[in-house]
Amino acid sequence: MSIIFYDIPTKDRTPISPNAWKTRFTLNYKDCPYKTEWIEFPHIESRCKELGISATSTSPDGAPFYTLPAIHDPNTGAYISDSLSIAEYLEKTYPEHPLFPHNTIGIQSAFGPAFMKNVAPLWQFIAPAMLSKVSPLSEEYVFRTKSVDFGMPLDQLLPKGEKAVEEWKKFEAGLGVVDSWYAKTGSVFLMGNEPCWADFVVGSFVVEFPRTVFGEHSQQWKDIMSWHGGRWATLCQNLKKYEKIA
Amino acid sequence: MSIIFYDIPTKDRTPISPNAWKTRFTLNYKDCPYKTEWIEFPHIESRCKELGISATSTSPDGAPFYTLPAIHDPNTGAYISDSLSIAEYLEKTYPEHPLFPHNTIGIQSAFGPAFMKNVAPLWQFIAPAMLSKVSPLSEEYVFRTKSVDFGMPLDQLLPKGEKAVEEWKKFEAGLGVVDSWYAKTGSVFLMGNEPCWADFVVGSFVVEFPRTVFGEHSQQWKDIMSWHGGRWATLCQNLKKYEKIA
Repeated sequence: MSIIFYDIPTKDRTPISPNAWKTRFTLNYKDCPYKTEWIEFPHIESRCKELGISATSTSPDGAPFYTLPAIHDPNTGAYISDSLSIAEYLEKTYPEHPLFPHNTIGIQSAFGPAFMKNVAPLWQFIAPAMLSKVSPLSEEYVFRTKSVDFGMPLDQLLPKGEKAVEEWKKFEAGLGVVDSWYAKTGSVFLMGNEPCWADFVVGSFVVEFPRTVFGEHSQQWKDIMSWHGGRWATLCQNLKKYEKIA
Repeated sequence: MSIIFYDIPTKDRTPISPNAWKTRFTLNYKDCPYKTEWIEFPHIESRCKELGISATSTSPDGAPFYTLPAIHDPNTGAYISDSLSIAEYLEKTYPEHPLFPHNTIGIQSAFGPAFMKNVAPLWQFIAPAMLSKVSPLSEEYVFRTKSVDFGMPLDQLLPKGEKAVEEWKKFEAGLGVVDSWYAKTGSVFLMGNEPCWADFVVGSFVVEFPRTVFGEHSQQWKDIMSWHGGRWATLCQNLKKYEKIA
């Protein structure tokens, strides 16, 4: 039976959530049959509660906070949220095509936070641009919640002029640190010829998220694809076989 | 021929630098014969320049900044600084007892920054306590340079009263995240029964550094050894065979 994969749509039903991309990559890589159920941002909480999917964190006011991706596996009855928890569940239940080969779950769990710190300057560019991509139903929700996350109205987050040039360079430099990790491996993926979890973390934020939000004709996308000796263009190419939207 | 290992002494010639501990662990784990040359803090720059050892970073004023550990390998003529660069050199030159098995150099390179972010609250306790451990020759240097690093006179960094209790709890919580990475592996070391580079990073900061600076009779040491179901006490036990000071 197919796994149900809960993801957030854009206006044209292409996926926008980088965290959900990690799960899509994982499902495709592991050849797990699945079917997407699209849930708009404002409906995530009620739908998760209805299904019995756990909150992934706590709001500043102490209330449980619900996020996607989540999955339901009718073969085991499991409902799971949080991309890393989903990956760990899928790895245990469907061990073929390992995400964490050679007992690397511990060190790969530390990879996400280290990676996110380096790409942090991307957010000020990409979060405001998300507004024009999501459905009118989600727009108000994204504006309100992301404005709280960033401590200012989302439409004021985007840097302008000189500041924009500087901050975009900071993003390039941060990504340069990630490039240096890849360079040490001497391969397209971080652990060799097959992708691991960490590659899906990188691919979600460096390939899928900017491509969806900025678009393939944008200067931002062209910049990223040209940086670091074409590292991300090559990664993009090699992730194609795990991009199916089912 | 023995490798020369450049390290910083305390008053009683026990090592104090956590970064140098990473190199000592590596040399012992790889069974590389070596001999320590002790260099006091204020002499690091002149001795590195004399030997032709590269600076590891740049000071805020733009001048090259020299740090230990460093090694000289008379078998190849190499002089190398920076604990991770030394580890990479030793791994290539002496591949037995691998630090980065199964092509994990890329993901393990990301481990250090993720780990350091989680244990950051330790610094305000341990940096001021270093002063009473180093020789009179190094004391002024440590006070001056660490005061610049932390943006306040080093003797004012130590939190007091309620604040101290809170900050020590933050350190425990941060280390709890690192514990969760270990818990996922189900083994004493991060990749199984043999240590990898990331274990030496953790052991240097969670075992050797607090033991040297706070001492084995301190409340701080007892706390750390009792936390997280004895995780760090067990790690301490299992690192013993790599602690030789040659």
